[in-house]
Amino acid sequence: MAFIKDNFMLHSKTAEKLFHDYAKDLPIIDYHCHLQPKMIAENYQFKSTYDLFLGGDHYKWRQMRSNGVPEEYITGDKDDFSKWEKWADTLSLLIGNPLYHWTHLELDRYFGIKEPMTLDNCKSVWDKCNELLKRDDFRAQALIKKSNVEVICTTDDPIDTLEYHEQLKDFETKILPTFRPDKAVEIGKETFVPYINNAGIKTYEELLNWLSARIEFFNAHGCRLSDHALEAVPFALGDAKAVFEKRMNGGELTVTEIDVFRTAVLKHCASEYVKLGWTMQLHIGALRNNNTKMYHKLGADTGFDSINDLEIAASLSRFMDNLEVDDALPKTILYTLNPKDNYVLGTMLGNFQKSPTAGKIQFGSGWWFNDHRDGMEDQMRALANLGMLANFVGMLTDSRSFVSYTRHEYFRRIFCNLIGSWVEAGEYPKDWKMLEKIVKGVCYNNAKNYFNF
Amino acid sequence: MAFIKDNFMLHSKTAEKLFHDYAKDLPIIDYHCHLQPKMIAENYQFKSTYDLFLGGDHYKWRQMRSNGVPEEYITGDKDDFSKWEKWADTLSLLIGNPLYHWTHLELDRYFGIKEPMTLDNCKSVWDKCNELLKRDDFRAQALIKKSNVEVICTTDDPIDTLEYHEQLKDFETKILPTFRPDKAVEIGKETFVPYINNAGIKTYEELLNWLSARIEFFNAHGCRLSDHALEAVPFALGDAKAVFEKRMNGGELTVTEIDVFRTAVLKHCASEYVKLGWTMQLHIGALRNNNTKMYHKLGADTGFDSINDLEIAASLSRFMDNLEVDDALPKTILYTLNPKDNYVLGTMLGNFQKSPTAGKIQFGSGWWFNDHRDGMEDQMRALANLGMLANFVGMLTDSRSFVSYTRHEYFRRIFCNLIGSWVEAGEYPKDWKMLEKIVKGVCYNNAKNYFNF
Amino acid sequence: MAFIKDNFMLHSKTAEKLFHDYAKDLPIIDYHCHLQPKMIAENYQFKSTYDLFLGGDHYKWRQMRSNGVPEEYITGDKDDFSKWEKWADTLSLLIGNPLYHWTHLELDRYFGIKEPMTLDNCKSVWDKCNELLKRDDFRAQALIKKSNVEVICTTDDPIDTLEYHEQLKDFETKILPTFRPDKAVEIGKETFVPYINNAGIKTYEELLNWLSARIEFFNAHGCRLSDHALEAVPFALGDAKAVFEKRMNGGELTVTEIDVFRTAVLKHCASEYVKLGWTMQLHIGALRNNNTKMYHKLGADTGFDSINDLEIAASLSRFMDNLEVDDALPKTILYTLNPKDNYVLGTMLGNFQKSPTAGKIQFGSGWWFNDHRDGMEDQMRALANLGMLANFVGMLTDSRSFVSYTRHEYFRRIFCNLIGSWVEAGEYPKDWKMLEKIVKGVCYNNAKNYFNF
Repeated sequence: MAFIKDNFMLHSKTAEKLFHDYAKDLPIIDYHCHLQPKMIAENYQFKSTYDLFLGGDHYKWRQMRSNGVPEEYITGDKDDFSKWEKWADTLSLLIGNPLYHWTHLELDRYFGIKEPMTLDNCKSVWDKCNELLKRDDFRAQALIKKSNVEVICTTDDPIDTLEYHEQLKDFETKILPTFRPDKAVEIGKETFVPYINNAGIKTYEELLNWLSARIEFFNAHGCRLSDHALEAVPFALGDAKAVFEKRMNGGELTVTEIDVFRTAVLKHCASEYVKLGWTMQLHIGALRNNNTKMYHKLGADTGFDSINDLEIAASLSRFMDNLEVDDALPKTILYTLNPKDNYVLGTMLGNFQKSPTAGKIQFGSGWWFNDHRDGMEDQMRALANLGMLANFVGMLTDSRSFVSYTRHEYFRRIFCNLIGSWVEAGEYPKDWKMLEKIVKGVCYNNAKNYFNF
Repeated sequence: MAFIKDNFMLHSKTAEKLFHDYAKDLPIIDYHCHLQPKMIAENYQFKSTYDLFLGGDHYKWRQMRSNGVPEEYITGDKDDFSKWEKWADTLSLLIGNPLYHWTHLELDRYFGIKEPMTLDNCKSVWDKCNELLKRDDFRAQALIKKSNVEVICTTDDPIDTLEYHEQLKDFETKILPTFRPDKAVEIGKETFVPYINNAGIKTYEELLNWLSARIEFFNAHGCRLSDHALEAVPFALGDAKAVFEKRMNGGELTVTEIDVFRTAVLKHCASEYVKLGWTMQLHIGALRNNNTKMYHKLGADTGFDSINDLEIAASLSRFMDNLEVDDALPKTILYTLNPKDNYVLGTMLGNFQKSPTAGKIQFGSGWWFNDHRDGMEDQMRALANLGMLANFVGMLTDSRSFVSYTRHEYFRRIFCNLIGSWVEAGEYPKDWKMLEKIVKGVCYNNAKNYFNF
Repeated sequence: MAFIKDNFMLHSKTAEKLFHDYAKDLPIIDYHCHLQPKMIAENYQFKSTYDLFLGGDHYKWRQMRSNGVPEEYITGDKDDFSKWEKWADTLSLLIGNPLYHWTHLELDRYFGIKEPMTLDNCKSVWDKCNELLKRDDFRAQALIKKSNVEVICTTDDPIDTLEYHEQLKDFETKILPTFRPDKAVEIGKETFVPYINNAGIKTYEELLNWLSARIEFFNAHGCRLSDHALEAVPFALGDAKAVFEKRMNGGELTVTEIDVFRTAVLKHCASEYVKLGWTMQLHIGALRNNNTKMYHKLGADTGFDSINDLEIAASLSRFMDNLEVDDALPKTILYTLNPKDNYVLGTMLGNFQKSPTAGKIQFGSGWWFNDHRDGMEDQMRALANLGMLANFVGMLTDSRSFVSYTRHEYFRRIFCNLIGSWVEAGEYPKDWKMLEKIVKGVCYNNAKNYFNF
């Protein structure tokens, strides 16, 4: 019997109608992901079930470690199928976890596999996927086409040549870059000096000019968003030029000096984004690379990150206000990794909303550790209680995988279920015209209108 | 078809019975609001639909900005009906937001308008309200009488003459002042020195004496509550007199000095409240005036405030303990703007509960950004899980509007629905006698007994 | 009519089946409680209903104070039955509070009392319990046997002789000690120096050796867990020996010095736990003894504690990482008193999971102020959303009472209801074999396998 039913996650007649009639068939605008443009441009063929599903997915590795699976079956030397078995065994126990839903949506929608995967049937899943992945219609570009994706925004370093985006300019799905200058901003990290040297930058002025030039270059390639990862939100005013020089001359920076520099450089970038009508994304609250041993063994993004819990309200307010005072606050999406901040962000938006853009400041969809039923619903409830859910730009995959577009389906079901439950409870009229407008807005039109791709 | 049904927000038979049989017809004790006593005393006649609903309501302005409405249609030069249209259009999209419910309750209960308001029918709403507002039974006093309000506590500066309260002493609803001495406490703000000078105060001792005298004066006018806004809860012991002198002589204060002064002055006031049997309200966690540009243009309370996220537990504990040690802890209501603090406050109460008052220390109802279905329910769930929901003094409007008494109805429905759901789930007996006591307590009797108006 | 129905807290057919078929009859492993081993060894006979239910229960005292009951009826001179009446009256108003459920479960399961207790019938409850408590089958050991308890872990100071555990070595329920060295760790507290002197310890090396020896001694008595109370999680590296000497010589320590010492001593203990395969419990986030007056009158653990709200993520991460780097991170259970930290802890686990133990790092069950329907459910939802609920070691009583084993029943019902609701909603397959494994795991087998008693 199929695990994913027609009305999966839809628990009322209204929810069913909203999803099936209005949401289901809308194209996808995936405005933030981590796909490699090279893989799209070269129309990558997946080597195996392992390659597609498990080879680079630290979400799954993390749960396998939670299940006591030895590292040799995760990132080590064991053969791929043995790893797959360990994953299947782990998966079957993941009750209540989004990976359970994501995986079965992916197996169903792309491979027609309907049965829940367990250790018992994982060989047949393995074989069936392996077989299909040999076909051309399971290569990277075909997977995107099948998924009804209109726009994909990858995440790229300013130094990137964007050659693959260039190659893809006639591909039917728009493949656009996103400007993510973290390495040029994070002056406290060891990556900073080599990065600046590598870019041939000598002075603070050159850095700012270089960033402006790269933003222009990205813009010419269709880029309409930037992205910034902020463990804490910086706000300090001071002499950023002096901080830059101190750092490049080998000096040790104080926390305040680091924040002075970050504030100034972010503000410089933001003022460029305003000119070009870009959207600035701020991802707040990750605590990364917590396990030193594993970091030395496997590097970053291997499943050893978690959620930070710093105070963020005051500095975020001052940062945004400082930009607004100088007309340097672009359209902005605020994401938090810590759900304790949902109400802080949900009200911070309101401080800086401004015509003509409806929802100029956005509260980003449940991110990373919040990308599940409860996390998405909590974010949407906070947004609705505090502001305008109807103006929300909605879902993004944030993913490295070519089959994670089903997360848009997952989001749409959860969203339709939520507002459907309100309608059924008599909290909003059963006005299908308005509901259609709201559903199509959140699932597609709002993003379409907001980003100007 | 009417949007507000008989059983709006009531989702079980038990909930329906609790609300309709026990809660619905109880009088209202509105122990904290921001109505202007002058408007009541002069029996204000509203100039128009705009004047009643939109002219001073920064909750609505904020959502209009979220919807991309230009400021000229909010606080600017456009004509009132054009603004009303923009509001109607925004309202129709506010799915899940409490303004959707509040507005339709107000239109229904006061004006008999049952249809959901949209851009299409907003002209007929405008006309009908305008028409009715010309009548005497829609003036300020009549609106209060219609709302079955027994007591109203306004919010007043110590310097206030209370002349309007005096004029209203024979009005059938008690109109009582609340003592809010923020300007005399907040020594770090620029308003402090002018305020002290204006009151003719020369020394720290004079300040304390003046506050005591004003508390006596307010008490003689029926005041039984104070109110204090605290961005963070101060606790520091030291020489408050020296801090006062430093400030009045133009010195720059440290954060600790500010807290020394605030702690001392609050404690002085608190000890006076104890003598008179008053209740002290502490409103914790607002982050105000975040948008400098708009602050310069429109001033405070115009829709640019949000939620702070400071650590509050330790200093609040020490503050309350320091008062308790010196028998200076009055009946106290703790409100938080950040729902992350619900469990901190819900347990802080228990540290200082003391006979003879049941629920001497209260956890205040969902405040401002939490004044909606989820926020009120979360506050009541926390209170019930951690303490005694049955002793809760319940709802207040915290409003500037003469038609926001429907928020008491909204609260009563949500409260009855919550405890009704527990009864239906078998978590509390279907003992109607006890349930009647609890419902009538939370909706009316507890406040009646607690405040001694 | 009985208040506790067969399907109490079970709101779907699947939930009913999971509880009645799989969970209900499993033995109990109570791996953390505060029972006095002396009372078990001496097979304590309770003097009265008061002695069993009210005499030492600060949870109940706290709610009586919330209800305005004078202290003389709580910890004062009034006769026991008058106190019982005040408790019964308070209880009847505790709608939504876990004490309402716990008390009625205890009265039903141990005494066959089915009616909800109120002021009206509290005398008959009093009499019936008093009568039964005279019987041998209501003495301490019989209550444990009736409760189907396989293992009990008490909480003991390192200095304890464990003589009662020794006496109980042939008792059919394993009564094992837990190593709780807070007094040897908390160098900032006034208890530290007397404690060290009393143990005859002269130097820092002697302290470490003494701790190692006591851990060996506890291990020989079957101890498999330690327990540590941490207001905040310490992390600082430095010269712990110097800090020890400074303190013993009467010096005043800085916050950092205190953390240096705590980090070092905790790490020393942890490395011993690793060798012996023990589990380390960290209880984070209590704010204790908030009411100085009552502390001076009644001492600690009398109902004046609450929830702290410090930032914990970064220091907890560094602490655990520092241990992991030196192979000194044992199996660990992280408990938080502040539910705002649920997502911080739920992701912190994943940073340090490691084979061969499934769920090596555990997120502890809803603790103290979170030990209720919502608190337990929120903890389990967070765990499921972020990690593997199926590997959870489940419930503990954390109690001083011999009749609180019903809290395991309460937990099992809430757990079965939660996952049953997911199955009914189509979020996990109705695969009874897998569900049986998960239910039996969380309710019994996981703890059995994890702790190696």
